Amino acid sequence: MLSRIFTGLLLFVSINTTAQQVHAGFTQVTNYLIYYPDGYNTDTTRRWPLMVFLHGSGESGSDVDKVKVNGPPKLVADGKKFPFIIISPQASSPQVGFPPLQVHALLADVKEHNRVDPDRVYLTGLSMGGYGAWKIAQEYPEDFAAVIPVCGGGDTSLNWKLRYMPVWNFHGGKDMNVPISQSDDMVSSLRKYNPTIRYTIYPEVGHNSWEKAYDTDSLYTWMLSQTRFRFHETNPDPASLKLYEGKFLDQRNDTLVFQSDGKQLIVWPAGAPDDKLPLKSSGPGRFYINDRMLTEIVFPSGKSKAPYFTLYDRNDRKVCRRVK
Amino acid sequence: MLSRIFTGLLLFVSINTTAQQVHAGFTQVTNYLIYYPDGYNTDTTRRWPLMVFLHGSGESGSDVDKVKVNGPPKLVADGKKFPFIIISPQASSPQVGFPPLQVHALLADVKEHNRVDPDRVYLTGLSMGGYGAWKIAQEYPEDFAAVIPVCGGGDTSLNWKLRYMPVWNFHGGKDMNVPISQSDDMVSSLRKYNPTIRYTIYPEVGHNSWEKAYDTDSLYTWMLSQTRFRFHETNPDPASLKLYEGKFLDQRNDTLVFQSDGKQLIVWPAGAPDDKLPLKSSGPGRFYINDRMLTEIVFPSGKSKAPYFTLYDRNDRKVCRRVK
Repeated sequence: MLSRIFTGLLLFVSINTTAQQVHAGFTQVTNYLIYYPDGYNTDTTRRWPLMVFLHGSGESGSDVDKVKVNGPPKLVADGKKFPFIIISPQASSPQVGFPPLQVHALLADVKEHNRVDPDRVYLTGLSMGGYGAWKIAQEYPEDFAAVIPVCGGGDTSLNWKLRYMPVWNFHGGKDMNVPISQSDDMVSSLRKYNPTIRYTIYPEVGHNSWEKAYDTDSLYTWMLSQTRFRFHETNPDPASLKLYEGKFLDQRNDTLVFQSDGKQLIVWPAGAPDDKLPLKSSGPGRFYINDRMLTEIVFPSGKSKAPYFTLYDRNDRKVCRRVK
Repeated sequence: MLSRIFTGLLLFVSINTTAQQVHAGFTQVTNYLIYYPDGYNTDTTRRWPLMVFLHGSGESGSDVDKVKVNGPPKLVADGKKFPFIIISPQASSPQVGFPPLQVHALLADVKEHNRVDPDRVYLTGLSMGGYGAWKIAQEYPEDFAAVIPVCGGGDTSLNWKLRYMPVWNFHGGKDMNVPISQSDDMVSSLRKYNPTIRYTIYPEVGHNSWEKAYDTDSLYTWMLSQTRFRFHETNPDPASLKLYEGKFLDQRNDTLVFQSDGKQLIVWPAGAPDDKLPLKSSGPGRFYINDRMLTEIVFPSGKSKAPYFTLYDRNDRKVCRRVK
């Protein structure tokens, strides 16, 4: 039965069935490998970059040493040194794979207990782990500075969440396990939002594109030069702010009121003027709340009295139309 | 930091930072209350119905006794008897809420270690837990026989997944915390797929609609009369099967070939005739693979050489169009 999310579920139920309503606990263990770079133990003031590596379906199970069969954990086992921490969680089964929440929680825990640079956390994976990398990045874009999926694929309809994510995708042109169309679709869909996406195809390689990919030294150079996205505040032109004033209706028929105070745009739900929220500007027609959250309001640029804006929030993209 | 999925995360990291690549474990504990009905310990041959109860945001935290403040756990604490098992997990914080995967895994574990009737598992919750109930049912419809959200809301675009789910929804007409429009939207959207949905509004009640809802005895009678959905196999008319023969293209440009062998419809991906899959019929133009999985193929009924069909799979609804 599919009761184990990750591997090695350590059951720990302390119940007393003679009482009527009793306390109980359900315990889950995620097994993972962790690699520390040279110097981690001696240079204790520094915060280090971290890479999350997600293995392929064949390495699933409860023996975490299986994870060393491919990818960075194999290179480490063979003696290669990397200048960053690597964590490699093991999925209990291909059916369970890598649930985004589980990886997010594991990562948060690793960050809490190790000297990790939160602005330089990277996500990669191969095959099943490539699918995992796409999915986890889409669910938690704020966690990562860059994503490197290898011979995976995913849900193209969520790629708007990766509009600010540096991505380098790899695939073998003759992959018979995961057709290259899976990567083609993700890349072409994402490119609309994110023109800087990198895509390396090895035309003559089958499913095992990971060996060449993880042997690419420039991959790590590129990766380490990426830092987690943040909005940069710009000074808006007070006259242009006037263009965005007005009332807008979202799909839920909630009305939002936008007004300028001469310096910034302020928004509140109609009928609740006490809930005023100042917006920061990141460019013409672009506004945000918090420089780390990807919540963003985007007006079509340069249009006077723009008829709509797009609201990107954590879970959704909404188009809000201007009303009287 | 958001590293605790549920409450009482019991940290258990066994790492040795002098080695280069080492084993580690990340442990999470979900605390919950469990109630056993009278007779559970003596009648050990029977399998029992089970209700999952999800509390409101105020009861989040690490003291699981807080969960007894409202709803069925409160009624039990006050001496009420129910003829079914109740599990009441505690969310660590309102920010974390009730992640569907976590509740799904907890439920699977409880089913594995208790005498639960898998066809009579019910899901309910109030306020934050009402949102949780909608979301978890949408993510894991195969888990539940019925869902009872109280003053919650959710994502209407996923309601197609609840097309076979018995639902009884409650809300107070004067709720200022969760506007009744949240329930209205869910109910009117779901009714298109599922006309039997029940909706009880208490016009004069504010946010606390749960007291009245959980005091409604007929709620439990109705609930216990529901069993988990399964497709029922029908004998298709061989002539009608001919109508659905042909090639169809899905949105990913994958071609599916449908052919009848006179008794049933058979499908395979074009170019892979070895992957033939027989479909069972559940009525005119309706086909399924497994009577418990909600994967379903629906042709527009009564149309000769139907121009398309809708494929419902675990995560997606696809419209596949007929091609030459």
